[in-house]
Amino acid sequence: MTFNFASDNTAGVSPEIAAAMVEGSRGSAMPYGNDPVTQELQAQFSQYFETEVEIFPVATGSAANALALSVLSPPYGAIYCHQNSHINMDECGAPEFFTNGAKLVCIDGASGKIHPEDLADWLGRSEKGSVHAVQPAAVSITQATEAGTVYSLEEIRNLAAIAHAHDLPLHMDGARFANAVVSLGCTPAEMTWRAGVDVLSFGATKNGCWAAEAIVFFRPDLAKDLLFRRKRGGHLISKMRFVSLQLQAYLTGNLWHKNAEQANRMAAKLATGLGEIPGVEFEHPTQANELFVHLPEPVLQGLKAAGFQFYRWAGEESQLVRLVTSFEMSEESVDQFLVVAQTHAAQPIP
Amino acid sequence: MTFNFASDNTAGVSPEIAAAMVEGSRGSAMPYGNDPVTQELQAQFSQYFETEVEIFPVATGSAANALALSVLSPPYGAIYCHQNSHINMDECGAPEFFTNGAKLVCIDGASGKIHPEDLADWLGRSEKGSVHAVQPAAVSITQATEAGTVYSLEEIRNLAAIAHAHDLPLHMDGARFANAVVSLGCTPAEMTWRAGVDVLSFGATKNGCWAAEAIVFFRPDLAKDLLFRRKRGGHLISKMRFVSLQLQAYLTGNLWHKNAEQANRMAAKLATGLGEIPGVEFEHPTQANELFVHLPEPVLQGLKAAGFQFYRWAGEESQLVRLVTSFEMSEESVDQFLVVAQTHAAQPIP
Amino acid sequence: MTFNFASDNTAGVSPEIAAAMVEGSRGSAMPYGNDPVTQELQAQFSQYFETEVEIFPVATGSAANALALSVLSPPYGAIYCHQNSHINMDECGAPEFFTNGAKLVCIDGASGKIHPEDLADWLGRSEKGSVHAVQPAAVSITQATEAGTVYSLEEIRNLAAIAHAHDLPLHMDGARFANAVVSLGCTPAEMTWRAGVDVLSFGATKNGCWAAEAIVFFRPDLAKDLLFRRKRGGHLISKMRFVSLQLQAYLTGNLWHKNAEQANRMAAKLATGLGEIPGVEFEHPTQANELFVHLPEPVLQGLKAAGFQFYRWAGEESQLVRLVTSFEMSEESVDQFLVVAQTHAAQPIP
Amino acid sequence: MTFNFASDNTAGVSPEIAAAMVEGSRGSAMPYGNDPVTQELQAQFSQYFETEVEIFPVATGSAANALALSVLSPPYGAIYCHQNSHINMDECGAPEFFTNGAKLVCIDGASGKIHPEDLADWLGRSEKGSVHAVQPAAVSITQATEAGTVYSLEEIRNLAAIAHAHDLPLHMDGARFANAVVSLGCTPAEMTWRAGVDVLSFGATKNGCWAAEAIVFFRPDLAKDLLFRRKRGGHLISKMRFVSLQLQAYLTGNLWHKNAEQANRMAAKLATGLGEIPGVEFEHPTQANELFVHLPEPVLQGLKAAGFQFYRWAGEESQLVRLVTSFEMSEESVDQFLVVAQTHAAQPIP
Repeated sequence: MTFNFASDNTAGVSPEIAAAMVEGSRGSAMPYGNDPVTQELQAQFSQYFETEVEIFPVATGSAANALALSVLSPPYGAIYCHQNSHINMDECGAPEFFTNGAKLVCIDGASGKIHPEDLADWLGRSEKGSVHAVQPAAVSITQATEAGTVYSLEEIRNLAAIAHAHDLPLHMDGARFANAVVSLGCTPAEMTWRAGVDVLSFGATKNGCWAAEAIVFFRPDLAKDLLFRRKRGGHLISKMRFVSLQLQAYLTGNLWHKNAEQANRMAAKLATGLGEIPGVEFEHPTQANELFVHLPEPVLQGLKAAGFQFYRWAGEESQLVRLVTSFEMSEESVDQFLVVAQTHAAQPIP
Repeated sequence: MTFNFASDNTAGVSPEIAAAMVEGSRGSAMPYGNDPVTQELQAQFSQYFETEVEIFPVATGSAANALALSVLSPPYGAIYCHQNSHINMDECGAPEFFTNGAKLVCIDGASGKIHPEDLADWLGRSEKGSVHAVQPAAVSITQATEAGTVYSLEEIRNLAAIAHAHDLPLHMDGARFANAVVSLGCTPAEMTWRAGVDVLSFGATKNGCWAAEAIVFFRPDLAKDLLFRRKRGGHLISKMRFVSLQLQAYLTGNLWHKNAEQANRMAAKLATGLGEIPGVEFEHPTQANELFVHLPEPVLQGLKAAGFQFYRWAGEESQLVRLVTSFEMSEESVDQFLVVAQTHAAQPIP
Repeated sequence: MTFNFASDNTAGVSPEIAAAMVEGSRGSAMPYGNDPVTQELQAQFSQYFETEVEIFPVATGSAANALALSVLSPPYGAIYCHQNSHINMDECGAPEFFTNGAKLVCIDGASGKIHPEDLADWLGRSEKGSVHAVQPAAVSITQATEAGTVYSLEEIRNLAAIAHAHDLPLHMDGARFANAVVSLGCTPAEMTWRAGVDVLSFGATKNGCWAAEAIVFFRPDLAKDLLFRRKRGGHLISKMRFVSLQLQAYLTGNLWHKNAEQANRMAAKLATGLGEIPGVEFEHPTQANELFVHLPEPVLQGLKAAGFQFYRWAGEESQLVRLVTSFEMSEESVDQFLVVAQTHAAQPIP
Repeated sequence: MTFNFASDNTAGVSPEIAAAMVEGSRGSAMPYGNDPVTQELQAQFSQYFETEVEIFPVATGSAANALALSVLSPPYGAIYCHQNSHINMDECGAPEFFTNGAKLVCIDGASGKIHPEDLADWLGRSEKGSVHAVQPAAVSITQATEAGTVYSLEEIRNLAAIAHAHDLPLHMDGARFANAVVSLGCTPAEMTWRAGVDVLSFGATKNGCWAAEAIVFFRPDLAKDLLFRRKRGGHLISKMRFVSLQLQAYLTGNLWHKNAEQANRMAAKLATGLGEIPGVEFEHPTQANELFVHLPEPVLQGLKAAGFQFYRWAGEESQLVRLVTSFEMSEESVDQFLVVAQTHAAQPIP
C-alpha cells in the first residue's frame, strides 16, 4: 500500500517491464539504437498508431518535448502553448535551450486547455513575415492537461485545424498519453494523427517504465535533423536497447492500457469519495489520474499527519492540493485515504 | 561467448546491477533525486574518493561531459583538449551546445595524450583579458585516452599544475575511468583530486551499467548552477533512483574494479596473442581495454568472415582496426579470436 | 516639411551631430573604444547622470537592450516585462538570443505600463529555487512606453521597490528616454537611479543621431562580462569614435533636451488639434511623442491620399493609427496634417 | 602626417564618404532598409560584381562574418578555416554565437593560407552522416589573409573546387577585400564568384568608411533566413540609409580602388625601404597593406621613441611587428618612418 499521492513518477516499475529489462540485459548488441529491439520499435509503434510513424526513444519527457520543438521551430520562432503547460512552467527553459532561443507564447485558458478562439486570436495577431517579430512556428497542447482534464477529440480537431490553417504543426505533450486515451475511450490513432496531431511526446515513464519516452512523428518529414540534435543534446543513449526494451514491453499485451486504467479508476474513486465530504471543492473536473481539489484545512492536516504525501498546489498556505494516482495505486490505499479524510472532515478546525 | 569487439558499450549489464534495479523497482519514492538511494550516493562517492565530493548522476557520458564543461566555461570561453578527444570528435558538438558556444581548442599529441609542453605553449599564447579573443576557461583530458593509453599519475600532475598556474580547472573525461585505475594500480583518489583533477565525468555504463554516469566535483564550488543546467538540458531523470541504484551497485563490493580487471586482462591477452602474428603492428601501446592495431588484410577479412565484429578505424580501406574488450568478454572469445587470426596469418592475400 | 508620421526613426540627423562627425573624421585614433572621445564619454555620462556610471556605446537599440539583459539573466532566467514591450514584440527574439534562451515573462497592463500589483503578483508566484522553473532574473520597463505614455517617478519607484525586494535589478528601455524626461520635467538622474533604475538602454538614434545608443550601468558591478558579450555579438564598432562623437554632441549644449522638446511639443499640438475633430478618439493619453488615436475612415484615407505616412496599428482594416513626431517635425507639418484631417472630417464616409 | 601604423582601422573617413553622409542626413526616409538608398544598393552591388547578388549591409566585420556563417552552418556544423583566421582568433567566438555553437575546424598553413591538399585531407576525414560528428557545413578563407598575403585566383579556384566537391559553400572574409583586388590586378568578379566564392563579407570600414560592411550572396538561395537573424542579432540598423550611403559613396567613382591603391602602395614602399636595412627580415611576403617584419631591437625602440605606433606581434618581447597602411597614409609618413628606422639601424644594440 502506498501513501504517496504526490505524483505518478513516485511509482516504481511494472513487473512486466522489469522482467523484459532483465531478460534483455545479457549478451552484446550494437549501441546507439543499432540493436534489433530499437529497430523493431518503428514497426511496433506504426502498428500501435495504425500508420507509418518515425520514432526516437529518449529517457526523459523534457528531452522529448524540447527535442520535438527544436525541429519544429527556428531560433526566432514562436511556439503557442498554454500558460500553465509543462513546457512553459516545469522544464527550466528546456524548449528555449534546445530551440536556441525560441519564444513560448503563453495562452491562458480554463482547466489547462487552450480554447480554439483564443488560439485563433493570438495567431491572427502574429506578424508573420515581419522581420521585427518572432515567427509562428508550432502549436503545442498537453494531453491529459496539467489540470487533470482531457481535451475531447473535437477540441483537438479544432485546434489542429487552426494551427494547420496557419501552416503550423501541432505538437502534443503526451506525458500522460495513456491516461487520456483511456479517459476518452478512443484509440491512440484517433487521439493523435486522425485528429490532426503531427508530433507527439509519448510518455511511458509515469505509467510503468523506468525512464522511457518516445518522440513520435506522424509526418516523418518534420523530423528533419533530429538525430543530430538528439546526439548533441546528450540524449542518444549508448545502450539504447534498454530504453527500447521498456517501450517494447509497455506496448506489449496492452500493458500501457491496463496501467492507465488502474490509475484513472483510482482517481475516479478518489474523486467520488472526496466529493461526498462537506467543504471539499474541485478546482477542475477529474478526467484522468490527477485531482485538483480544495480540502478543508483539518482534512488536509489530518491526511498529512496520517502519512499521506501530496503537494499544496499554490504555496504553503494553500488548501488547493494535487492528488495523483498511478498504476501502482491500490484500492486499499484510496480507501484508507478516504477514511482518514472523512474522519477529519467531521472535526472542527483546530 | 561474444564475437563483438566493436565497443565496450555493446556489452549488456552486470547481473549484480540488474538485480539491484529489480530489487529497487517496487514501491514509491520521491522523484528527481529526492529519493533515499540518490541521497546516499553523495556519501558513497565521498567514501570512494576519500574526500567530500558533490555528484550529479546522469544517463549518458556526453551529458556528463557537456554539463560539466557548461559550468566551467562561459559562452566566450576556450576549453583546451586533445584533437581526438571524445568531446571534440564524438559528441556532435554537445560541449558547444551546453556551453552556448564555447570553443574547443584542439591540441595534437601522440597516443591520445596532451603533452605538458604543448599545453603550456598553447596557454602561453592565449590572449587572456583581450576582448577579441575567447578566454581560457578549462583544460580537459581523457583517461583512459581515446587511443587506449593511460596517462601516468605524473603526467596528470604536470598537466594539472600547468592548468592551475593559469587559474584553469582540470576536467577528466572518465568514460573508461575504472579501466584506467586498474591499469595504473592506483586508487580513484590518486588518479583524480590527489593528482589535481577538479571535475570528473565518472563513467559506469561501458563497464557494466545500463545507463549511469556521474559528474563528480572535487571542488564543490565549481558546480555552481549545474542543477538548473541539468534540468534545462532534459537530464534530470524523474525516477532518478533507477540511475542511482545502478551507481550504488556498481561501487558496492568492488564490482567496478572486478569488471574493469576482466576487460583489461582480456585486452592484454589479445595484445599478447596478436603480437605474435607476423605482420601485425600496434598503433598505440595497449594500456587499458582498447587495442589499435594494424592487421594484415587476410587476417582482417578472415576474422570478419568468422563473424567477429570490429571497426576499421580510418576508413573502409583501412587495415588499422580498433578492438575493445569489456567486462563480459570471456577467455574463450579471445582464444577463438586469436585462433582465427593465426589461421589467416599464414595464408596468402587472396 | 515632412509628411512622415510613421516613426521617429524616419528622421534624419541633427546638424550639430553631423558637424561633429565630420569634424572628428580626420586623422587617426586607436580603434575599439581606445580613442580619447570614447574614453571621455564615461565622465560626460557620469556628469549627465550626477553619479558614477559605466557606459557601453552600441549602434542599435536592440543591441543595447539584448546586451544589457544578457548580463542580468542566466540562460535559465526569467525577465519580467510588459506584454507589448519592444523587447518582447519587436526585436525578433534578440533578448532570447543574447541571453542564450532566457524567458520573457509577459505582464499585461493598461496603456503600456506594468502595474505594481501585477508585478508583485507575478513575482510572488515565481518558484525561486525550484529546479523545474526558470529563475527570476530581472524586471524591464520601457520609458516612454510603447503606448506613448510615461511612467511617473512614483510608478518607477514602486516597481523598483518590488523588483529590489525580490533581489532583481530594474532595467529601463529608454529608446525614447529624452522624450520621457522632458515629459516629466525632471532630471535624467531623477528618472533613473534616484527612482531605482539599475541599468538603462539610453536611446539617442531616434532623437537626432545616426546610430548611437549607450548601455548605462548605475551599478557598475552588474556590467560583469559585457565587454566580451558585446564583442562576441559583433557590436564592438572598430572605429568606435564615430559612435562616441554622436553621443558626445548629443549631450553637449542640451541638444538631447532641445530635440525632445520639439518632438513632444509637436505631439501635443497634434493631439490638441485632433481632439477637436468629431469622431476622433484617443486609445492612450499622449504624454511623449507618440499618439495612438482612432480616426474616422474618411479622415484616415484623406490623410493617406494627401501623402501623409503612418501605420494602421492593428491590421489593414484598423482605424487605430500611430502618429509619431520627431525633432525634425515642424509646426508647418503638423498644421498641414490637421488641416487635411479637418477637411475630411466634415465629409460623409464614401 | 600620421604616425599610426597599428592598424588600418585607426584611420578616419574618406572626405567623399563624409560628404555623402552629410548630404543624406536631411529629411525623412523609411527605416530598417526601406529607404531608396538601401534599395538601390542591390543594383549597385550587382553591377560592381557583374552578376545578380543579394546584399545585406551591417556595421561591423564580425557581424558580417558571423551572420554569413549563421546561414551556412547548422548548430552541429563544422566550418573549416585557417588556424589564424579572424573568425577563429579575433571575434571572441562570434561565429559560435551566431551559429548557436558550430565548430570551427582549424587548418594550419604557411603565410595565413589554407593549402588545398590540407583542406582536402581534413574534409576527407570528416565523418559526414555520422550522428557522432559535427557535419561539414562551410569553408571560409580570408582575402587578403591575416598574414598580409593574397591568395592567387588559382588558389581560390582550387579551394572552391574542393569545397564544392564536398557540397560545401565557400565563404570569403573580405575585411581587406579592396586591397586584395588591387594586389591581384583583377576585377571583383574574378576574385569572387568567378573563382567559386559563394558568400563574401565585403569590408569597407578599414578602407575609408566609418562603419559599413556588406554580406554579399552570389547564390541568393544561401541567404535563407538571414533577415531574421540580422534583426535578432541587433544588426538591423534603424536609420539604415546612413550605412548604405557610405557603401554607395564607397563604390562610386572607384573610391574603393583609389583608397586601396594608396594603402598598398605605401605598404610596398615601406617594404622596399625596410628591406634595405640590415637585420630586417620579413616573416611573410608583403602583398597587400600589411607587413609582418622582424626589426632589430634598436630600430624597433627608435621608432617607438619617435612616436610611431604599431604592435609587437608575438608578445611583449617580440621583435616581430605588424605594420599596417591605410588610404590615409602619406608618402611623408612612410618616408619619415624609414628615416627613423635607418638612423637606428646603424647603431649598436644598447
